[in-house]
Amino acid sequence: MKLVELTVSEFIETLGSDAPAPGGGSAAALSATMGISLTKMVCELTIGKKKYAEYEDEIKLVFDETKQLQKNLLEAIDKDTEAFNAVSAVFSMPKDTDDEKAARRAAMQSALEGAAKSPLDMMKLMLEALEVTKRAIGKSNTNAASDLGVAALSLKAGIQGAWLNVLINLSGIKNEEFVASYRQDGEALLAKGCLLADEIYEETLKVV
Amino acid sequence: MKLVELTVSEFIETLGSDAPAPGGGSAAALSATMGISLTKMVCELTIGKKKYAEYEDEIKLVFDETKQLQKNLLEAIDKDTEAFNAVSAVFSMPKDTDDEKAARRAAMQSALEGAAKSPLDMMKLMLEALEVTKRAIGKSNTNAASDLGVAALSLKAGIQGAWLNVLINLSGIKNEEFVASYRQDGEALLAKGCLLADEIYEETLKVV
Repeated sequence: MKLVELTVSEFIETLGSDAPAPGGGSAAALSATMGISLTKMVCELTIGKKKYAEYEDEIKLVFDETKQLQKNLLEAIDKDTEAFNAVSAVFSMPKDTDDEKAARRAAMQSALEGAAKSPLDMMKLMLEALEVTKRAIGKSNTNAASDLGVAALSLKAGIQGAWLNVLINLSGIKNEEFVASYRQDGEALLAKGCLLADEIYEETLKVV
Repeated sequence: MKLVELTVSEFIETLGSDAPAPGGGSAAALSATMGISLTKMVCELTIGKKKYAEYEDEIKLVFDETKQLQKNLLEAIDKDTEAFNAVSAVFSMPKDTDDEKAARRAAMQSALEGAAKSPLDMMKLMLEALEVTKRAIGKSNTNAASDLGVAALSLKAGIQGAWLNVLINLSGIKNEEFVASYRQDGEALLAKGCLLADEIYEETLKVV
């Protein structure tokens, strides 16, 4: 059963249970999915309103992008738990012979790389989502300014949370080139994302 | 139908739809619910582990508190949308006679006060959730450090998001004493909450 097919109550129950997955990675993905969904709602509450007619074309473009990002971020909720489960699965591999031990070590490295890739991929989507949300600032229904602010806050929590999940998986990866490249990419995405999120939040604080 | 009885997919669909509710208030509440649920999970992944035996009693106390907070924050998701819907309902009240207009104005003030109270109540729960989460730092399973970090990030997004929702409702309230008292309480909760969340996040960054 997919996580996104659970009710919100059941998802929360599962998240808080002693099962290690779903964990912070899926929570970060859901946080960001809420963020881009709020941006989508704000676009819908703007399109067709006379007061914002001059921004109509731009907001329609933003709206179209929110739909795709909403879909991709929603999918990331399950993808992250699948990547984590692949790591857990390695623990049940045999480790009696040297060959088995070597196969297990190789499988673990590969699973950890997958578990680091999942939140890094998320971070790229989250940065896009923040760039898209920024375009709605000053051009969208100010009655929904608080919603655009919460969009930015949710996306920021998402990108920072995804970064923690990249880091915890990198800590077990021995391929130094892989680690260095992921660190570099992740830090750049994080810095850009936090800056954008703070800008959007500050702008919305001015109008609520 | 309650929002928390929707599937995660359906909740996201509804959040992103042109219906103004659920909006940022319910999203902030769900964000915080994820946060405290992650703290609960981290406690469960700590209790019974030899390595953390000396903290067992404290973590069990933390765990008990997460259960109640999880329940209360989950309920806040629907409560906020109900408070918002009460404001929307006033728009359909008649406004033909002076009496009707006066009744409508009074109803709007009362509904707005309810819509400001809902996120302020949330903020109190979120601050408690951050205090509880802080107690798990340095005493819980470090394999789940990223989850505790995401807990703090989700709770921070929650308390900041709830504050935006207090503010947007206060902007329509004419009772100056009410507004001043809510501003004072909200700003204090926000400042304490952000400080705590940042402390927890920084601590977890050190160990992931």
